[in-house]
Amino acid sequence: MTPFATRLHEAVRRKGTPALVGLDPRFDLLPPPVVESARAQASADANSLKAAAFEEFCLRIIDVVAPLVPAVKPQAAFFEELGPAGSSALARVMVRARQAGLIVIADGKRGDIGSTAEAYARGWIAGEDRDAAPWAADALTVNAYLGRDTLQPFVDVARERGGGVYVLVRTSNAGAGAFQDLDVGGRSVYRHVAAVVEELAAATADADGFGLVGAVVGATWPRELAELRAAMAHAPLLVPGYGSQGAGAADVAGAFRSDGLGTLVNSSRAINFAWLEEPYRDEYGPDRWEDAVEAATRRMIADLQSVLPAVS
Amino acid sequence: MTPFATRLHEAVRRKGTPALVGLDPRFDLLPPPVVESARAQASADANSLKAAAFEEFCLRIIDVVAPLVPAVKPQAAFFEELGPAGSSALARVMVRARQAGLIVIADGKRGDIGSTAEAYARGWIAGEDRDAAPWAADALTVNAYLGRDTLQPFVDVARERGGGVYVLVRTSNAGAGAFQDLDVGGRSVYRHVAAVVEELAAATADADGFGLVGAVVGATWPRELAELRAAMAHAPLLVPGYGSQGAGAADVAGAFRSDGLGTLVNSSRAINFAWLEEPYRDEYGPDRWEDAVEAATRRMIADLQSVLPAVS
Repeated sequence: MTPFATRLHEAVRRKGTPALVGLDPRFDLLPPPVVESARAQASADANSLKAAAFEEFCLRIIDVVAPLVPAVKPQAAFFEELGPAGSSALARVMVRARQAGLIVIADGKRGDIGSTAEAYARGWIAGEDRDAAPWAADALTVNAYLGRDTLQPFVDVARERGGGVYVLVRTSNAGAGAFQDLDVGGRSVYRHVAAVVEELAAATADADGFGLVGAVVGATWPRELAELRAAMAHAPLLVPGYGSQGAGAADVAGAFRSDGLGTLVNSSRAINFAWLEEPYRDEYGPDRWEDAVEAATRRMIADLQSVLPAVS
Repeated sequence: MTPFATRLHEAVRRKGTPALVGLDPRFDLLPPPVVESARAQASADANSLKAAAFEEFCLRIIDVVAPLVPAVKPQAAFFEELGPAGSSALARVMVRARQAGLIVIADGKRGDIGSTAEAYARGWIAGEDRDAAPWAADALTVNAYLGRDTLQPFVDVARERGGGVYVLVRTSNAGAGAFQDLDVGGRSVYRHVAAVVEELAAATADADGFGLVGAVVGATWPRELAELRAAMAHAPLLVPGYGSQGAGAADVAGAFRSDGLGTLVNSSRAINFAWLEEPYRDEYGPDRWEDAVEAATRRMIADLQSVLPAVS
């Protein structure tokens, strides 16, 4: 069994970038050709139509980005909004991403206790063997509010399967600090969560020094990002907030280890819906939306390369 | 539109009990007749078989408990473990529960930011109109670690649809205190979450004085339960931990308002799998497992009645 972090960094080295493309389909923003194609195939039921369109949209993005980036991050919520039809589409999208050689991080932010947490883990963390779970993620995002003991079932399943877990530590939203920043005797709540993550990561470290437990830390908080990289030396980081949420390459530089490993930087909307944004909107338009996805991905990769150490 | 808390308490008054039956199917614990029946109908695929068995098991429990209790709480994780087949089964179980006149609280512990949180809310909180969401819950359990702003989309969808939200405040697991109890200048993290819940609940209070935002508070912490009832006077409480997790009726007495309203007490495994436990095991056995469910439910109702004020 190859540990998750080893597989992840092998992919990062091969692609030469830590760029992570989010798969965040929104029906109102889909390119018209995708919607028309789905309409021709799907049943009249609104959620089935949307699910077919989401699936086609994501499969096409996967085809575009698979040669360029090491990993994708499908957002479970947008599929779940469509009910079982969406859940089935998500499962197929994840399988296709794995077949395309991508690491898949399911953004489900699950969290529960005991056997319930284990059920989520078994449903979502397939790890190395993509037939091991119905939603075939390499790793799953997890919420730790319920306590350290509630992380253990996720860690156990991930270890058994060669998968990973990304614990929410400091999120990218404007109001993230409401509970995460509360001051516990000079140390924030998120630092307490980070301490548990580091302990679990250190205990499962691979040859590169990274464990199977990582952390989600928003790019919108550059100071906390550098602080948390230091505090969680063994934890792979997943950094959302680059792109549409306003952070740039300079903001994420502090998230990396000096050898360029240890971090994935995510962009979702700025890539998925590049066809709606300048400078791609005028150049490509809805019929060449996939070219806009490719251009936006290449721009992100170049942008990150300008500030990061070369991956060694 | 009738507010969630009004509909909930109407059901509590009608049934004369605050007992909430969890639907927590576990394949290894299913009565053999349920598994055999599913095997006769379902395809050979392991997850489809299990999903068919979960569905039949839950539908039968619904038929038994619908005349006795106001509400059921399906645990999303156990269905998700089975992939899309499980998700579809869960949707049908929830529809049947609604058709049987039960309030349905989906235990999904979802949490995310902005439009992502809204997608979860739209997928799960149907509110008064059970066609409004593919998983037709009246209310959804939600995790607030991401911040106060991340609760707002859930609250907005719930308000629009006559649904509700139960925020995890103090959970019932042994390690719940790891982050929830951290001391923020003399006040625990969970009290900070509770303060936000109370504010959102007070702002949406119905004629009985209860809002559409409630809180999950474990029965395994009786002192905190009474403290939190006082701190969240307008919040409906959902109290897990009674039964299999060790708490008794006396432990939950402090969770109720003096008129007997404001709280649901949940029992899952002790009712679902009563056929495996004394005194039901010897009396009923696997063929009469539904009688065991009924007996365990009636015992819980009587147990709660012995310590609670009569609902007025």
